[in-house]
Amino acid sequence: MKVDIKKIAELIKGEIEGNSDLLIGNIAKIEEAKAGDISFLANPKYTPHIYTTQASAVIVSKDFKPEKPVNTTLLKVDDPYQSFSKILRYVDGKDLRKGIEEPSFIDKSAKIGKDVYIGAFVYIGKDVFIEDGAKIYPHTFVGQNTKIGKNTTIFSNVSIYHDTVIGSEVTIHSGAVIGADGFGFAPGKSHYKKVPQIGNVIIKDYVEIGANTSIDRATLGSTIIGKGVKLDNFIQVAHNVEIGENTVIAAHTGISGSCKIGKNCMIGGQVGIAGHLKIGDNVKVGAQSGISKDIKDGEIVIGSPALPYRNFKKSSILFKNLSDLHDRITLLEKKLKEKNNQNG
Amino acid sequence: MKVDIKKIAELIKGEIEGNSDLLIGNIAKIEEAKAGDISFLANPKYTPHIYTTQASAVIVSKDFKPEKPVNTTLLKVDDPYQSFSKILRYVDGKDLRKGIEEPSFIDKSAKIGKDVYIGAFVYIGKDVFIEDGAKIYPHTFVGQNTKIGKNTTIFSNVSIYHDTVIGSEVTIHSGAVIGADGFGFAPGKSHYKKVPQIGNVIIKDYVEIGANTSIDRATLGSTIIGKGVKLDNFIQVAHNVEIGENTVIAAHTGISGSCKIGKNCMIGGQVGIAGHLKIGDNVKVGAQSGISKDIKDGEIVIGSPALPYRNFKKSSILFKNLSDLHDRITLLEKKLKEKNNQNG
Amino acid sequence: MKVDIKKIAELIKGEIEGNSDLLIGNIAKIEEAKAGDISFLANPKYTPHIYTTQASAVIVSKDFKPEKPVNTTLLKVDDPYQSFSKILRYVDGKDLRKGIEEPSFIDKSAKIGKDVYIGAFVYIGKDVFIEDGAKIYPHTFVGQNTKIGKNTTIFSNVSIYHDTVIGSEVTIHSGAVIGADGFGFAPGKSHYKKVPQIGNVIIKDYVEIGANTSIDRATLGSTIIGKGVKLDNFIQVAHNVEIGENTVIAAHTGISGSCKIGKNCMIGGQVGIAGHLKIGDNVKVGAQSGISKDIKDGEIVIGSPALPYRNFKKSSILFKNLSDLHDRITLLEKKLKEKNNQNG
Repeated sequence: MKVDIKKIAELIKGEIEGNSDLLIGNIAKIEEAKAGDISFLANPKYTPHIYTTQASAVIVSKDFKPEKPVNTTLLKVDDPYQSFSKILRYVDGKDLRKGIEEPSFIDKSAKIGKDVYIGAFVYIGKDVFIEDGAKIYPHTFVGQNTKIGKNTTIFSNVSIYHDTVIGSEVTIHSGAVIGADGFGFAPGKSHYKKVPQIGNVIIKDYVEIGANTSIDRATLGSTIIGKGVKLDNFIQVAHNVEIGENTVIAAHTGISGSCKIGKNCMIGGQVGIAGHLKIGDNVKVGAQSGISKDIKDGEIVIGSPALPYRNFKKSSILFKNLSDLHDRITLLEKKLKEKNNQNG
Repeated sequence: MKVDIKKIAELIKGEIEGNSDLLIGNIAKIEEAKAGDISFLANPKYTPHIYTTQASAVIVSKDFKPEKPVNTTLLKVDDPYQSFSKILRYVDGKDLRKGIEEPSFIDKSAKIGKDVYIGAFVYIGKDVFIEDGAKIYPHTFVGQNTKIGKNTTIFSNVSIYHDTVIGSEVTIHSGAVIGADGFGFAPGKSHYKKVPQIGNVIIKDYVEIGANTSIDRATLGSTIIGKGVKLDNFIQVAHNVEIGENTVIAAHTGISGSCKIGKNCMIGGQVGIAGHLKIGDNVKVGAQSGISKDIKDGEIVIGSPALPYRNFKKSSILFKNLSDLHDRITLLEKKLKEKNNQNG
Repeated sequence: MKVDIKKIAELIKGEIEGNSDLLIGNIAKIEEAKAGDISFLANPKYTPHIYTTQASAVIVSKDFKPEKPVNTTLLKVDDPYQSFSKILRYVDGKDLRKGIEEPSFIDKSAKIGKDVYIGAFVYIGKDVFIEDGAKIYPHTFVGQNTKIGKNTTIFSNVSIYHDTVIGSEVTIHSGAVIGADGFGFAPGKSHYKKVPQIGNVIIKDYVEIGANTSIDRATLGSTIIGKGVKLDNFIQVAHNVEIGENTVIAAHTGISGSCKIGKNCMIGGQVGIAGHLKIGDNVKVGAQSGISKDIKDGEIVIGSPALPYRNFKKSSILFKNLSDLHDRITLLEKKLKEKNNQNG
């Protein structure tokens, strides 16, 4: 499929500088592009490539002024990265799966909306409600009394336990587990006794959940993932956690039971957050941090245990050569002793 | 379904204080409960709610003495949390699935006990033995020659490799992988050669295994999960590990090959344990610790590398403002130099 | 099945010392072996067992000279561990699955080679190409336009997204997710906008991928796993990462987007690597390290943030008793003050 560059310019409200009689066949990185490809330049680090690229067209910022001649058509826009994303979305909308593949297992009591895709080997339990345009890929399990919102996509091999509520325009990647029991055991005489986990999980609209991520159901009440939250792969969200709108969390991070995380936070990878904590809005947490205290709105912390960013940086630099400090102390002790002997 | 509060009192051996002509319809948190609900008060932090709760009944400790009037029926017991758990279990026993859903794949050589549930799309390999009352949810794979004990529940999308032995009353959550090859490779001339992993995994009675947790098979012999062990989500148990009875491990912890972990240990989240170590009984390991040495019975360690708890705490506090120590050393050096000059 | 020890000696080019009229029925650890078993001795720590073992035969190094009489047949070889592995492989080649189990879902456009195993409930999408001898276990999803090479084994419940290219002799364990979307979102006015991920994943020959590991597709271009790479369980490989030949990575390690990892590296468990970094060839990274800078060929680092190994070791020892340094500084300050007063 080839697309006229004038159509692309229209889509991204871009201004063509150079040859406008072009058909674009593919999308590629600026350093790898070939004739017929379109690329983009957003990171100044890649600017040198604009003078050597084989791409037929490159999306650039309106501010971009070449220092020497370029052999490619420029498409000037306000934000090259956003524009490029828009093109990708335009091109990417090709998976228009619809209908029900066989064999699948759909309980008679389930309500299925219009234009839904249900892949082969999907299991839909009792009283499930799947809204219009949702796509459920093969081998996904949807437990009873679960609701899946409009245009939500759930990839293969996902497990969704009973009573889960999933909003619209949500994406859940393969291997994710939604609504498994929270990790709750009460000490007994000879062994632990399970605390039944009878709450559920609520996932709001526009959430994306990464591959193999796990969100446990609440003991009572709900574990809640706020609107627009983005979770990477392998994230552990324990029972009764609540995550505020538009918070983004990187891979391998674990959030212990009953934590409340604010809005618009950015939490790095491999972070651990102890139970029952309150993390404010707009908080940033560096990768591999260990959080054991509440964090106020807007704070930036890192380390295990986590410190304000400046402290951590200064202390880490000194830690690197901690033996220098040790040697200086030893020398001071020696000198002072000499002095005492001398004076004594 | 409504339950008479006198029946609940009987179940938990509780003493009713207040209206005993109540029908309870639901279970809820004390701060969210409505009329007709039952709740509990175990954590003193929540005591203020007892005076404002809408719950029709609240389970409290025998020692609890209200400081002002309460508008709810009290159910006095020895241990409110345990009693509440008991009610939850009572209410929760509703998933009474039984029978074999189609399509499923059950090898002719497999032996299936009474009152078993086998969900649609379950795969049961050769010579598998499933005991009475076991429940196997959709999309679970049971490899050949595996045994699954009485009343064990295995949720959806679990993979159980061949030769696994699973006890009774075990729960395995979705996405768990039991018996994949241990990570063993021998250096070869041009590339690593795989060391075949021909041992198996043995899981004893009353074990619970979290979502997406992985227990590798032994190279030779068995990887063994002791009776009553509780594993949270995303735990890596490598080949030939043995975990003692009633040990509890939090999410994202990784245990390297051939470690022996004792009984009744509590291991936090994101802990890493190097290979071939021996961890004693009743050991506590703080979250995010890195263990590279054996640990004796009863020790409490934290940090990476792990230290006794007191050392870690004191050192962490000093680390926070390590630049203060640095400044004090610099000042001492300066003063001593001045002194020398002065005296010189 | 019993095997003549002379046949085993032939297979591993070993020299028999002792009874050569033996039939071997099983493989076992030296300390657990019984009559009829074969075992091996590679680690000197286990040498005492050779004098007490019940094994009928033990593979030992050519250099091994018993200090007292042994009651077992010795099989002398250059490298006992490698020889033992070879036997294991020989014995282990028993899973000769072939053919297509029903029900499975295979798109008409898919091309399936000779001697392929496709388990029940496998889903093969459009234009998939599966080469000769590949084995695909139950509940695995193979997205459209994916290629799976010769003799590759993919275990149960694996999810392989569209456009993935998998080489020959690859092993992928259960729960792995290959080709899920990279974690890319562009800030929008009220919420993040997804950056479409239209690249793919390429896995070269002889790679092994652990249970529940996840390799994200590239935003553009390819995420590439080099020939002979071995990935343990729960590893996060983000979009556009490239891993060089024969690099080995332990469990729970996370590699952020666009990192280039060299050849023959050894990376420990729970390591985090920040985005866009270049790790050289033959690099060693200790467990739980945090990498935030490029690393040159051959370096050995550990810690978070990572330091050269020697620095980390010295600093860690001092960190353990950091309060000693603090006390020594305080004492120096006191003494110097006294001296000043005395002199003053």
